[in-house]
Amino acid sequence: MSITNGWFSEVEAMWPGQKFSLQVEKVLFHEKSDFQDVLVFQSATYGKVLVLDGVIQVTERDEFAYQEMLTHIPCFAHPHPKRVLIVGGGDGGILREVARHACVENIDMCEIDPMVCDVSKKFEFSTATAFGDPRLRLVHEDAAEFVKREGNGQYDVIIVDSSDPVGPAETLFKPEFFLSMKNALSPGGIVATQGECLWLHLKLIRGVLESCASTFTSLEYAFTTMPTYPSGQIGFVVGSTAERDLSTPAREPDAAMAQDLRYYSPAVHRSAFVLPAFAEREVSAVRKRFS
Amino acid sequence: MSITNGWFSEVEAMWPGQKFSLQVEKVLFHEKSDFQDVLVFQSATYGKVLVLDGVIQVTERDEFAYQEMLTHIPCFAHPHPKRVLIVGGGDGGILREVARHACVENIDMCEIDPMVCDVSKKFEFSTATAFGDPRLRLVHEDAAEFVKREGNGQYDVIIVDSSDPVGPAETLFKPEFFLSMKNALSPGGIVATQGECLWLHLKLIRGVLESCASTFTSLEYAFTTMPTYPSGQIGFVVGSTAERDLSTPAREPDAAMAQDLRYYSPAVHRSAFVLPAFAEREVSAVRKRFS
Repeated sequence: MSITNGWFSEVEAMWPGQKFSLQVEKVLFHEKSDFQDVLVFQSATYGKVLVLDGVIQVTERDEFAYQEMLTHIPCFAHPHPKRVLIVGGGDGGILREVARHACVENIDMCEIDPMVCDVSKKFEFSTATAFGDPRLRLVHEDAAEFVKREGNGQYDVIIVDSSDPVGPAETLFKPEFFLSMKNALSPGGIVATQGECLWLHLKLIRGVLESCASTFTSLEYAFTTMPTYPSGQIGFVVGSTAERDLSTPAREPDAAMAQDLRYYSPAVHRSAFVLPAFAEREVSAVRKRFS
Repeated sequence: MSITNGWFSEVEAMWPGQKFSLQVEKVLFHEKSDFQDVLVFQSATYGKVLVLDGVIQVTERDEFAYQEMLTHIPCFAHPHPKRVLIVGGGDGGILREVARHACVENIDMCEIDPMVCDVSKKFEFSTATAFGDPRLRLVHEDAAEFVKREGNGQYDVIIVDSSDPVGPAETLFKPEFFLSMKNALSPGGIVATQGECLWLHLKLIRGVLESCASTFTSLEYAFTTMPTYPSGQIGFVVGSTAERDLSTPAREPDAAMAQDLRYYSPAVHRSAFVLPAFAEREVSAVRKRFS
C-alpha cells in the first residue's frame, strides 16, 4: 500500500515524474477484489477517499466536478433522455447525477466489480445516495460483453465512468467498444466517456478520437477541472449518432436542480468544449462539430 | 530543503492535507536571497523548475498557461496598450508575453528580488527570453513603494505576477496596493493580478474582490488550468477604471502570434471568465461586469 508517514501517494505509471498525495487520517478498508486493489481511507482534508489500483477515483471534497460534468453534458445535450446506461461508476456518483433528471425512466448500470459498490455504500460515500432509485437495474459483469449482448438501440445516453486504460478498464477504450455502444444507442443518442487529461495524454486522446471518428456522426472533446485527478483536470469524449451541437445544452436544469448543482451550469457546459490552444490544434483535426 | 529520496514536495501551509511532488534529476541552485529561499532544479519530466519559499513558481513544461493567460487577458481586453507595468514576474515569463504585443512601447518591471531574475537568466529558463527587450526598464524594489511613488496615470495595463500572500508578496494583496495601482492606471486602464485558486481559496478571493470593489469600475475573476500549481488551477483578479467588458477581447492576436501561443486564444479568453457553479455563486455577488 502506498501510504508512508501518514500520506497516501498515487502510483505514477501513467504520469511519470509527478505525484499527488493526500494526508491519511485512517485506513477504513483495503482488500483485493477479483479485479483490482480497493482502498478506502478517511483523509485529513478531502473527506473519504476511494482508490483503485493505486489511483484516486473519488474524494468527497471534489467528486462533484467529475460526476456532474460527465453526466450532465450528455444528459442536457439530449433533448429528452429516457433510458440511460452507466458503464462502471461503481461509487454511485454518476447514478446520483443521472437520477436528478426527472425525464429519465430507466437507468441500467454495469459495474464489473461489486466490491466498489459495496464499499461505497458501506462507508456512506457522498456518491452513494441513489442506489435505492427504483429506476435502477444494477448488473455486475464485463461491460464490453454486456453492451455487445444487450445493446440494441435502446439507450438515449450512455455514460462510461471507467478507470484508466491500464487494468480492468482497458477494453473500454477500444474501437470495438465504441462500435458496440453505437449499436446500443437510440437514434440521435449520445455517449460520453472518461477521456483522460489533455495535459498528460493528448496523444492517447487523439488516438481514441481518431479510432471512433468513423463510428459517430458528431464527436467532441470537453474537460473539467478536478483537483485530485492527475494534473488537476479530466476530459470526456462525447459522441452522437446524429448531427448534434453537443457543446450547447438542448435543455437546462430547472431552478431547484440548478440550486443543487455545484459545478455544472449551461455556461460551464459550453465553456467545457473550449480547449487550450495546444489541445485545440490536436483535437480540432479529428473533432466532428455541428453548431 | 524539501527533497526526499529524489522527489521535491511542496510545503503545504496554504493547502493543508495535500501535496504535489516532482521527481528531481539534479539540484542546480539553492540559496537564501534577502527576501526568500530560492531553489532551482532539473526535474525528470517538467524541465527546469523554480521554487520560492518551498512553492513551485515555474516549470518549463506548463508555465505558458499561467504566463499567457495572466498577460493576454488584460492586454487583449485593452484596445491599444502602450505602457505596461509588470509587478514581480522575476522569471521573465510575463515579460516574454507582454513583449509579443507590438503596440506596447514601454515595459516597466518591478521585481523586489534580483536573485529571481539572475537565476532565471543564468539557467536559461524558457521564461527568460525577453530581458534584452529595448522597451524594458527593470527595477528592483518593493512594488508597493514603487507604484505609490511613480504611479501617475501612465500605465494602460498593470500585471501583478506575485507569489502567495504569505511572505514578500503579502502587501500586494492589500486594498492600499490596489488603490495605488488605480492611481497608476491611465483612463480605462486594466489591472490583472495573480488571484489564487478557486478550489482552495474562495474566501480569500472573495475578500480581495470585496476589498477592491470600490476601487475599480469593472471587476472580474478569471482562471486557467495549471497542473503544477496547487489543485491544478490558478485565477486572476481583473479590474478596470472604466466600464469595460473584460471577458471579451478588444483585439485579437494576428496569425503569427496566434501560431506561437500555446494556451491563449480569443475563445479561451472568454471561457476563462465562466466559473464553476460553486465559485460563480460567490464571485457573482461581488463582480462588477459590463457586457
